Amino acid sequence: MANRNPQYRNVVEAVIGDAPFVKDVGIRLIDVGPGWVETGLKINAKHHQHDGFVHAGVQATIADHTAGAAAMSLLGAGEYVLSVEFKINLLRAARGKSLRCRAEVIKPGRSLSVVRSDVWCEDDDGEKHTAHAILTMAVLKQ
Amino acid sequence: MANRNPQYRNVVEAVIGDAPFVKDVGIRLIDVGPGWVETGLKINAKHHQHDGFVHAGVQATIADHTAGAAAMSLLGAGEYVLSVEFKINLLRAARGKSLRCRAEVIKPGRSLSVVRSDVWCEDDDGEKHTAHAILTMAVLKQ
Amino acid sequence: MANRNPQYRNVVEAVIGDAPFVKDVGIRLIDVGPGWVETGLKINAKHHQHDGFVHAGVQATIADHTAGAAAMSLLGAGEYVLSVEFKINLLRAARGKSLRCRAEVIKPGRSLSVVRSDVWCEDDDGEKHTAHAILTMAVLKQ
Amino acid sequence: MANRNPQYRNVVEAVIGDAPFVKDVGIRLIDVGPGWVETGLKINAKHHQHDGFVHAGVQATIADHTAGAAAMSLLGAGEYVLSVEFKINLLRAARGKSLRCRAEVIKPGRSLSVVRSDVWCEDDDGEKHTAHAILTMAVLKQ
Repeated sequence: MANRNPQYRNVVEAVIGDAPFVKDVGIRLIDVGPGWVETGLKINAKHHQHDGFVHAGVQATIADHTAGAAAMSLLGAGEYVLSVEFKINLLRAARGKSLRCRAEVIKPGRSLSVVRSDVWCEDDDGEKHTAHAILTMAVLKQ
Repeated sequence: MANRNPQYRNVVEAVIGDAPFVKDVGIRLIDVGPGWVETGLKINAKHHQHDGFVHAGVQATIADHTAGAAAMSLLGAGEYVLSVEFKINLLRAARGKSLRCRAEVIKPGRSLSVVRSDVWCEDDDGEKHTAHAILTMAVLKQ
Repeated sequence: MANRNPQYRNVVEAVIGDAPFVKDVGIRLIDVGPGWVETGLKINAKHHQHDGFVHAGVQATIADHTAGAAAMSLLGAGEYVLSVEFKINLLRAARGKSLRCRAEVIKPGRSLSVVRSDVWCEDDDGEKHTAHAILTMAVLKQ
Repeated sequence: MANRNPQYRNVVEAVIGDAPFVKDVGIRLIDVGPGWVETGLKINAKHHQHDGFVHAGVQATIADHTAGAAAMSLLGAGEYVLSVEFKINLLRAARGKSLRCRAEVIKPGRSLSVVRSDVWCEDDDGEKHTAHAILTMAVLKQ
């Protein structure tokens, strides 16, 4: 997909780096291209449900924020996105050392962008697909 | 709705109190009845997006966890729930002093429960409806 | 809620009456007010799944179209809506003589409206809540 | 993915062929493999919205039914599925000669299967991606 802002890497780095809740949860940028972003998270005790699995809210947060960043990678300078709505399926219980999230824009648009996000949980024996989300983002101008 | 566990208040208190991510985010129990739960959250800087509004991930976390607690309020002893999937609409930007969430079971079931959660953001001039979610929970036995 | 078009009843009647697929499925208008619409459908064999229950596609169609009509009831002259996305939970199997759908606007907006739709299936022994949907509608100008 | 019923093609043919609403809408089977199904629909005037585009309800019906068939392709003899819930994003207005739908199981399970469905609208100048859906199916025994 074509990005309209040659500075899109800087934009995505700021989207991931400047949000206090995202920093607090521990999400970091892995890589970015036009229309897609990958992020990661080192799992520790604070991310857990009472049963030791990663909380659905953590997976929703990484899925949502990474999707917003992917949508931002295709925008022009001065444009930004807000989440309108998303749906997430928790595919299996998530236990392991880290989460990886990849978001891809399915349908870019002038006023709305639709993005899919997938989350995998990584452990010593490989990674498992733990969540799948579809997100609708509103495109706005500053 | 009829609850099958006379200890349901204790169950819900434990659901809210024993989850590390929920404690880390700052969610606390307000009140509970058979089939519904209310929770709250005092907003501070760590809950923000880069723009000073509450992050969608915070609203998703309180909507999901409160819904799980509401579903639990109707279960028998030894039963618990896992989130299968949820959808959340972010109705307007959330800025204020606190969040309030109310979850109500729409359809209890032996294997699946469907719950709605609403989130309001409270400020000095009143509260505004900021998110609406529908959640599907799987009912499991220990 | 305040409607901006004094002719909103005519608008909603046309929304229900002029869509070929809605006519083919058999959906009719029951009543309308500012921000809400009720529709109905007499169930016959063509609406069934192989097992004699009403097909999820029928319930999705009535939920979507009634929600669009409810959103239209609040718009100004010359504005219309398109469905951006919706989620529907099928709460229980639907068998009976007729469907009733009520859609209510949760959050009207200049560019997006969020609407909830509920579907009940009516039989000789009363009606049962069979589906719940949340829909996001884009508001456009002709 | 491994199918547990060597007769899965016959099962899927019956799923598509025996549902009155699916027959009425005009959906036909194109192809099937373990974990995926493709279906098609020749668009005519009865599928339209008032504006000549294909109604969201038609796209929801083909997305839902094709997903159910894909989930069925992986089940054992005597098992079947019911739609628990689905979400569909309407990516762009659908106008053309035919719809094509491909459903793929994302996560098969003993009690729940998660399936994605995509819909394309075909015209003389090619096909366009018009809808994307994620569906949760309950697996039941006869």
